[in-house]
Amino acid sequence: MIQGDLRVTVPIRWAMVGGGRGSQIGYSHRCAALRDNSFQLLAGAFDIDPERGRDFGEALRVAPERCYPDYRTLFAEEAKRPDGIQAVSIATPNGTHFAICKAALEAGLHVVCEKPLCFTVEEAETLRALARERRRLVGVTYGYAGHQLIRQARAMIAAGELGEIRMVHMQFAHGFHSEAVELANPSTRWRVDPKHVGPSYVLGDLATHPYYIAETLLPDRRIKRLLCSRQSFVESRAPLEDNAYVLMEYEGGVMGHLWASAVNAGSMHGQKVRVIGSKASLEWWDEHPNQLRYEVQGEPVRILERGMDYLSPEAREDDRIGAGHPEGLFEAWANLYGRFALAMEALDRDDTAAVEALGIPGIEAGVEGVRWVEHCVRSAEAGAVWVDYR
Amino acid sequence: MIQGDLRVTVPIRWAMVGGGRGSQIGYSHRCAALRDNSFQLLAGAFDIDPERGRDFGEALRVAPERCYPDYRTLFAEEAKRPDGIQAVSIATPNGTHFAICKAALEAGLHVVCEKPLCFTVEEAETLRALARERRRLVGVTYGYAGHQLIRQARAMIAAGELGEIRMVHMQFAHGFHSEAVELANPSTRWRVDPKHVGPSYVLGDLATHPYYIAETLLPDRRIKRLLCSRQSFVESRAPLEDNAYVLMEYEGGVMGHLWASAVNAGSMHGQKVRVIGSKASLEWWDEHPNQLRYEVQGEPVRILERGMDYLSPEAREDDRIGAGHPEGLFEAWANLYGRFALAMEALDRDDTAAVEALGIPGIEAGVEGVRWVEHCVRSAEAGAVWVDYR
Amino acid sequence: MIQGDLRVTVPIRWAMVGGGRGSQIGYSHRCAALRDNSFQLLAGAFDIDPERGRDFGEALRVAPERCYPDYRTLFAEEAKRPDGIQAVSIATPNGTHFAICKAALEAGLHVVCEKPLCFTVEEAETLRALARERRRLVGVTYGYAGHQLIRQARAMIAAGELGEIRMVHMQFAHGFHSEAVELANPSTRWRVDPKHVGPSYVLGDLATHPYYIAETLLPDRRIKRLLCSRQSFVESRAPLEDNAYVLMEYEGGVMGHLWASAVNAGSMHGQKVRVIGSKASLEWWDEHPNQLRYEVQGEPVRILERGMDYLSPEAREDDRIGAGHPEGLFEAWANLYGRFALAMEALDRDDTAAVEALGIPGIEAGVEGVRWVEHCVRSAEAGAVWVDYR
Amino acid sequence: MIQGDLRVTVPIRWAMVGGGRGSQIGYSHRCAALRDNSFQLLAGAFDIDPERGRDFGEALRVAPERCYPDYRTLFAEEAKRPDGIQAVSIATPNGTHFAICKAALEAGLHVVCEKPLCFTVEEAETLRALARERRRLVGVTYGYAGHQLIRQARAMIAAGELGEIRMVHMQFAHGFHSEAVELANPSTRWRVDPKHVGPSYVLGDLATHPYYIAETLLPDRRIKRLLCSRQSFVESRAPLEDNAYVLMEYEGGVMGHLWASAVNAGSMHGQKVRVIGSKASLEWWDEHPNQLRYEVQGEPVRILERGMDYLSPEAREDDRIGAGHPEGLFEAWANLYGRFALAMEALDRDDTAAVEALGIPGIEAGVEGVRWVEHCVRSAEAGAVWVDYR
Repeated sequence: MIQGDLRVTVPIRWAMVGGGRGSQIGYSHRCAALRDNSFQLLAGAFDIDPERGRDFGEALRVAPERCYPDYRTLFAEEAKRPDGIQAVSIATPNGTHFAICKAALEAGLHVVCEKPLCFTVEEAETLRALARERRRLVGVTYGYAGHQLIRQARAMIAAGELGEIRMVHMQFAHGFHSEAVELANPSTRWRVDPKHVGPSYVLGDLATHPYYIAETLLPDRRIKRLLCSRQSFVESRAPLEDNAYVLMEYEGGVMGHLWASAVNAGSMHGQKVRVIGSKASLEWWDEHPNQLRYEVQGEPVRILERGMDYLSPEAREDDRIGAGHPEGLFEAWANLYGRFALAMEALDRDDTAAVEALGIPGIEAGVEGVRWVEHCVRSAEAGAVWVDYR
Repeated sequence: MIQGDLRVTVPIRWAMVGGGRGSQIGYSHRCAALRDNSFQLLAGAFDIDPERGRDFGEALRVAPERCYPDYRTLFAEEAKRPDGIQAVSIATPNGTHFAICKAALEAGLHVVCEKPLCFTVEEAETLRALARERRRLVGVTYGYAGHQLIRQARAMIAAGELGEIRMVHMQFAHGFHSEAVELANPSTRWRVDPKHVGPSYVLGDLATHPYYIAETLLPDRRIKRLLCSRQSFVESRAPLEDNAYVLMEYEGGVMGHLWASAVNAGSMHGQKVRVIGSKASLEWWDEHPNQLRYEVQGEPVRILERGMDYLSPEAREDDRIGAGHPEGLFEAWANLYGRFALAMEALDRDDTAAVEALGIPGIEAGVEGVRWVEHCVRSAEAGAVWVDYR
Repeated sequence: MIQGDLRVTVPIRWAMVGGGRGSQIGYSHRCAALRDNSFQLLAGAFDIDPERGRDFGEALRVAPERCYPDYRTLFAEEAKRPDGIQAVSIATPNGTHFAICKAALEAGLHVVCEKPLCFTVEEAETLRALARERRRLVGVTYGYAGHQLIRQARAMIAAGELGEIRMVHMQFAHGFHSEAVELANPSTRWRVDPKHVGPSYVLGDLATHPYYIAETLLPDRRIKRLLCSRQSFVESRAPLEDNAYVLMEYEGGVMGHLWASAVNAGSMHGQKVRVIGSKASLEWWDEHPNQLRYEVQGEPVRILERGMDYLSPEAREDDRIGAGHPEGLFEAWANLYGRFALAMEALDRDDTAAVEALGIPGIEAGVEGVRWVEHCVRSAEAGAVWVDYR
Repeated sequence: MIQGDLRVTVPIRWAMVGGGRGSQIGYSHRCAALRDNSFQLLAGAFDIDPERGRDFGEALRVAPERCYPDYRTLFAEEAKRPDGIQAVSIATPNGTHFAICKAALEAGLHVVCEKPLCFTVEEAETLRALARERRRLVGVTYGYAGHQLIRQARAMIAAGELGEIRMVHMQFAHGFHSEAVELANPSTRWRVDPKHVGPSYVLGDLATHPYYIAETLLPDRRIKRLLCSRQSFVESRAPLEDNAYVLMEYEGGVMGHLWASAVNAGSMHGQKVRVIGSKASLEWWDEHPNQLRYEVQGEPVRILERGMDYLSPEAREDDRIGAGHPEGLFEAWANLYGRFALAMEALDRDDTAAVEALGIPGIEAGVEGVRWVEHCVRSAEAGAVWVDYR
């Protein structure tokens, strides 16, 4: 139970790049970081318009002189202060992640970055090398990975409660972009512009979320080959896809399957993960996140509820409120940020084992996400053929 | 509303081959055929053990002299009677369907046959030629295709309520064979023996059901190519698969996706069909068959209920009981058999247009099921590659 | 498993009074009785219009000379035949049940009657005395009581799996009569006319169903006192209620609660029963009848599925088809009718113990339903006050 | 959309009494108040153990000199500071609410208090008089009343979308206290001790929540009389009830029904409200709070989702994140606290009309909750009889 107690010794001095007024994602980062006092928001470059950024920062009670016009100034000026920031979160359009992330690491800062970290494996590896060299954290906000019931699922799978794993099915399939809404709505236009989002739309933007959840549930599984079929049902989006199917063959005979879509008309987010073993299956759905289906073959389906005593200690660790009270996206994010803070603290004392034990989406997850999208795109462009995974 | 009224002028004189004591599927055929007096059970070769067959037939009030030792005798002797049977249902192991079906057609009988009709397209085409020549019906029992809400879905799609169709997702994925239950249970052993089931297990046994539902929902769509990846998670089942994924590219850019499994641990039948259009989606699930989800993008999801006035006349036609009272598998089958009877009557007066209008799974559906499985197996055996569909 | 095997030695010779063309309830009786050959439909007085009744009977393949103009002629003429009927089902408007039921018993027939048997306890006791004297069955069609999962629930409660029973909640609350539909629809008009339905509408027509299910689940509980508050939200229905709440205090401190409504706008039938014990609860809902929720305090909720091996033998006895395939109202009724046949056979050999063991709604259930409604009405008319139950 | 923008001009200077380390409810208050910068936590008397309270306050970054040993000192010392607190939240055991609340009002502070405000209507009216005289807010934390979909429901009812209102059903029925857990667990013991909770357990602790939601949905309805039947299924809890049923007759013929329980074995919180009108019903359930069922008679049930464009502006006002992402209890509370802040600001400028328009649970709701429990207890103690409501 974390209710209000500090998890870190001293709150981490923290800034944001992007995520200004009206940004949902910026708000999510702030709610998560500030929820339990693990971070203090002390500085920022919140907006490409410096005036607007300063105004917004002040509304958040950031000192005016620490509301900077851009990320370079932010990093440079804060570095000069004895009480300068230790960590920065990046919530800018995708195309800028690499440069800002690189600059932050070079400035010696811990980083929390929106996915995707960057557009190519080469860039990702550059960031990884830099992070290792500087011993800094690069946390990637696969938010639902912080949900208590995902931790529960991981513990159950690790304990063998499903038997031998056979399949993992992933899905993130909403319908909000069934029409070309981007034509009328500039705030979604960048999502379908390769300049801003790289070589894919739903693969990078949606699919990487359940893909990372699958990674966290099956930490030792390696893909051997995959096949991706992608479509642009709204034709003006081509070459970017608004729908994709991916088949994956893992080592050990495990099969992976993923469906990502922005044109699943009438559906909310539809983020689901189902892991199927020789004895039982587990299924989790983001829209009703407080329930986890545990289906043992030959027994009645069981509905596990967040917060109950029968859950594993890993899952209970993040309890904020009694079972039966629904938690949602913001708590999942806050759990993640709480662990990011612990990881930063651990790295500051060079305790990489402690970081490993936290089970958070770090630089490896960031690199892997980019690599996976790259393979999917390669397969799709070759006509939806199998490509070896390396 | 059909409540108790005859749909045909005179009940059809009917016999069964197979489906004897203890057979679930035999019971399903009888319940469906006899439900509304469209058929009269007058003869049969119910069992490979003639004694047992006669005993069972008598329990069903079939005259002892019309309980025959085998299907050949059944067809020969009934042909001699002025009141001989007009139709026969075949509920024997898959490997015998072709021969019995052929013999029945040659004897001038209408046929209702369990799927699959046979194991090769060549065989299927032989049956089709024979059926056309003799002007006899070959009905295939894709039972849920008779469900009122499947008819409702077809009517809505035809009326354009989903917009332009983009995707069709099919699923039949249970967990009852997660272990090698066939080793201990002889009554399931034949399902995984190529001698009895042909070149596939779940593709032929399970997948053809939702595949036919998709056919009925999207009657004009032709597959251009497909890819099938299949697995034998219980290794002793190889080369037959207990799990399979199929991707399909249809003409006009529609994507099809199917998952069939007998190792989806902890799941009941999990037969689902989801059709996604540019404006809305429809989803139906066999385990809660009285509800149809209609999801218009940007509007609240609507749950359509069987029996309600707002449904289409096609769906209301088969009402047996008021909305709110659950119907199940047996009513879906009975609806199908009711239409089979009407089709037989129509064929007897050479009215093929009337048969077409009934929208039932006939010989074309039987042929198509076999062809589809054949393509899936060919793709899978070549390493899960795309194969052109012809 | 009953699939197609006779449960009785010889099918019972059977007739119907009422339930003619267009009657849903008549159709339900016939489907149930004929489903598994326990009954043979040989005669009837199907309609108040003799012509229409004969026409309908012939469509059902009843011999024309056994299609009678009225129930008196039916009973008199059949009594003269050596192969005359042994049992009759009564599916006429409520106001006629008593007279027909009485006449049938006096004619030495077994009876299956729609609820309510009659309108007063006095009448009910007359029928009981007659049934005892003639050793005939009076079965009452509380149809869902025949559902396999109701039998499962009863077995679990009897085995103490809920701990000590504390509460039983009953509900039957639909919305189909939210408006005064009876003004435009003559076929529903009788439901709100005291002449035809006696002293109550939803209490007698709806509430007695879940009330009987509760009786079957808790066979030894006696009500000590009850309180009923009833309303006529559609004012033209007064004095008959279209909505009612009933509180019941049972012996042993158990509390009962019931809500019946025909004005629960937007709802389907909403028939639910929840039994709460000191350790666990069970909940069943008619609209998804193949699932039974078993909720042990402190453990994950379990969803029991019809047809699974883990169910009790009592529940499995009526299996018609494998788990995962939905059964519905018609199977519940057929289970009930199958037991009515067995009870008739047992009574014919004077084996009343065998009848008891069947656990069916017989004359006691019929009497109790009338008594319960009588107490509810008395309480309501006195201003919704507590009345002692006797 | 409130994402991160201040709703008040200047954050309100705020303290807490109670809610120290390990308190879930204290954590809930802080998360809600601090979520969007409407309040600043500057002082507190967090614990009856002053040492522990100070330690905890410091962990929350409250200045050590403003961590007070008790509420009297807190109010007295803060009153002396130019930057002293403007508002205080009270999260102490129920028996202390009245005294602390009174002292806070006398000190000129705005108050947010856990329910129940106090134990008698007399006390409640004392607080009301004081609040009016001092023009201070007394907000009561009926947390879910802040949920966006409750606001949606209120807007739809006010707009007549249900037709004429006929019934309102309320429920809060969990199973966590099915056994006498209080014997082993001191932290729940006070809940069943009249000294600490007053004259009721589940009526005051649970039932007042959905009762207030009903108040907010049907603001103009007055109860004419009510009847309450209460039980102590765990006998050691007598005279306090762990289960209760309440029937209510409102003006205009509306019927109210409430079930509150702590012994609903196997259930989570089960907080539900259903409002039934002549045309349609609305139903909301706290465990899946992002969905609101809208059931128009004769039309398919519609599932409204939080965050969608089709919702009313009142509901959209509190959006934090896009539709499809689940929000939970903490967001409902934060919405409430945001409005408390606006109400305090409005009262500070004497704008009582603005306070009214906010639709928050203020002193009237506090008084009404106490009055309602008092009537329920009076009815129950007289043998579950009707009592006039005044």
